[in-house]
Amino acid sequence: MAMEKNFVVGVDVGGQTSKIGVVDIHGTVLEQTVIRTDNDEDPQAFVDILAAAIKDLIKKSGKEGQIRGVGVGAPNGNYYTGEIAFAPNLVWAAKSVVPFSKMLSTALDGLDVALTNDANAAAVGEMTYGAAKGMKDFIMITLGTGVGSGIVIGGNVVYGHDGFAGELGHTAAVRHNGRLCGCGKSGCLEAYCSAMGVARTAREWLEMSPDTPSVLRDVENITSKDVYEAASQGDKIAIEIFNYTGRILGASLADFVEFSAPEAIVLFGGLARAKEFIYQPTYDSLNENVLPLWRNKVALLFSKLPASDAAILGASALAWEIK
Amino acid sequence: MAMEKNFVVGVDVGGQTSKIGVVDIHGTVLEQTVIRTDNDEDPQAFVDILAAAIKDLIKKSGKEGQIRGVGVGAPNGNYYTGEIAFAPNLVWAAKSVVPFSKMLSTALDGLDVALTNDANAAAVGEMTYGAAKGMKDFIMITLGTGVGSGIVIGGNVVYGHDGFAGELGHTAAVRHNGRLCGCGKSGCLEAYCSAMGVARTAREWLEMSPDTPSVLRDVENITSKDVYEAASQGDKIAIEIFNYTGRILGASLADFVEFSAPEAIVLFGGLARAKEFIYQPTYDSLNENVLPLWRNKVALLFSKLPASDAAILGASALAWEIK
Repeated sequence: MAMEKNFVVGVDVGGQTSKIGVVDIHGTVLEQTVIRTDNDEDPQAFVDILAAAIKDLIKKSGKEGQIRGVGVGAPNGNYYTGEIAFAPNLVWAAKSVVPFSKMLSTALDGLDVALTNDANAAAVGEMTYGAAKGMKDFIMITLGTGVGSGIVIGGNVVYGHDGFAGELGHTAAVRHNGRLCGCGKSGCLEAYCSAMGVARTAREWLEMSPDTPSVLRDVENITSKDVYEAASQGDKIAIEIFNYTGRILGASLADFVEFSAPEAIVLFGGLARAKEFIYQPTYDSLNENVLPLWRNKVALLFSKLPASDAAILGASALAWEIK
Repeated sequence: MAMEKNFVVGVDVGGQTSKIGVVDIHGTVLEQTVIRTDNDEDPQAFVDILAAAIKDLIKKSGKEGQIRGVGVGAPNGNYYTGEIAFAPNLVWAAKSVVPFSKMLSTALDGLDVALTNDANAAAVGEMTYGAAKGMKDFIMITLGTGVGSGIVIGGNVVYGHDGFAGELGHTAAVRHNGRLCGCGKSGCLEAYCSAMGVARTAREWLEMSPDTPSVLRDVENITSKDVYEAASQGDKIAIEIFNYTGRILGASLADFVEFSAPEAIVLFGGLARAKEFIYQPTYDSLNENVLPLWRNKVALLFSKLPASDAAILGASALAWEIK
């Protein structure tokens, strides 16, 4: 009799390190480990190290033969093709198209591998184990170094015609004279509502209002974490920065609601941890900017996945979807 | 033996008149007729007149017993609930929630009825008989008196959590100091890229540039049709108005592409008939404003449904989807 396959492996591929975990059906991470991502420009070298680490971890968890599959969240990961293509932050995929799923599956002796980008993985994780459990229509916004998104409609992640749908971080939050974004466009949501965007707002505002006192004036190379800590201490400029950021985010969320009429929007990532400062302005701005028929009807939630395990859980959840 | 049901009825409900047609599987309208929509504030009275007209038309077409169902496109029509709720332009549904599908089905002795809004019906029509035939991921933008939209993902119309998804006409085309829209918000796409928006642009521009000659100066109560005719005669302001309108539309389309990564965007409705003036600025602006990965990859198409039958065909196509 074949053993039931009630466990999955989640792999979160980041620019510097990749996290790997063996996960059960309730979202408990049984075992986890971390490997370097940036040691070698040869994708096969990374895949071999990753496969070895996965095999070791499965062995350590005692679940050999009980693994349903491997879910991978990676920058520019394409669900349809299984490829990672031109991902600037990955040394072994910055300038080429890497058939990652196929390579990893081969290195794992045929174990099924499902791949998508980090934000889509987070959405599947939230739907499987977290704040969106049981929901069929929601939008996940990841507020990290950049702004990513995963859109779920009718219980399915929207991958679009080419597998790259859900780039809401690069929709226009400001239409005219907006900030230049890393993508080359201007006014993108990401240029304002990412960790980098918040730090940029802080630098601009401190410069523009030299007479307003702020603890941030003593900080070199301000990060969004510094702004959060300053706000926690009651710093007025820091609190105002989160108001501004939330208002821009909320106005963009209103447009997203008008697109797919979700039951909820789930915020995830570093900036979402500044919940007490960002929730109210975001909620108010969403509801001021949305058509009356959705006013105060769309829930604004925060991720319920434990921050330390969230990336692994998101990636692992993909593996449950493998047919 | 039961007769095969290879025909459908399409009903396009408008504020003043409603069009009804019997349609075959190739999108040929066998018989059609028009009734008044605005005679009576009692919804039952309208449903009874409509049902009688449908029965007459089916009889006239000789397809009694061969009708699969009735598809209805109506303002604020909700696919999930079968209701028309608070539709300002319908005298019998302006201030109430009308269980339209149920009422019509009863009046038609149990014939199945499917209801959605006009723009979603147009999208299904285009997918069944028109420019989007065979496509699974596209967005339909209807440029009429207002701006509507129907979004198709994975071969299904996106209705959202509540049945009201796809209000792209009310996403923000201009973020700051935008025109007031009929919906109460400011800067909506509809305030610029609808027939009303184009007429408004014309009035504003003529006033702002009193020394520029234009044939539009001799027109009272300028409509978008006047602007089109002026452009056709080579009128510089009129041509520039379409450039401006197309550029705003294209920038919004770029955001929609970043949402659902469609294979194509299909333009439909009165304004789309000004194809020769609106295509190029819209296409250029879409591609300047979209992330590089989609540049010149998303087709910009115009509806292929004959204008005179399009509304009936769109509504009728819904009826093929009835399970």
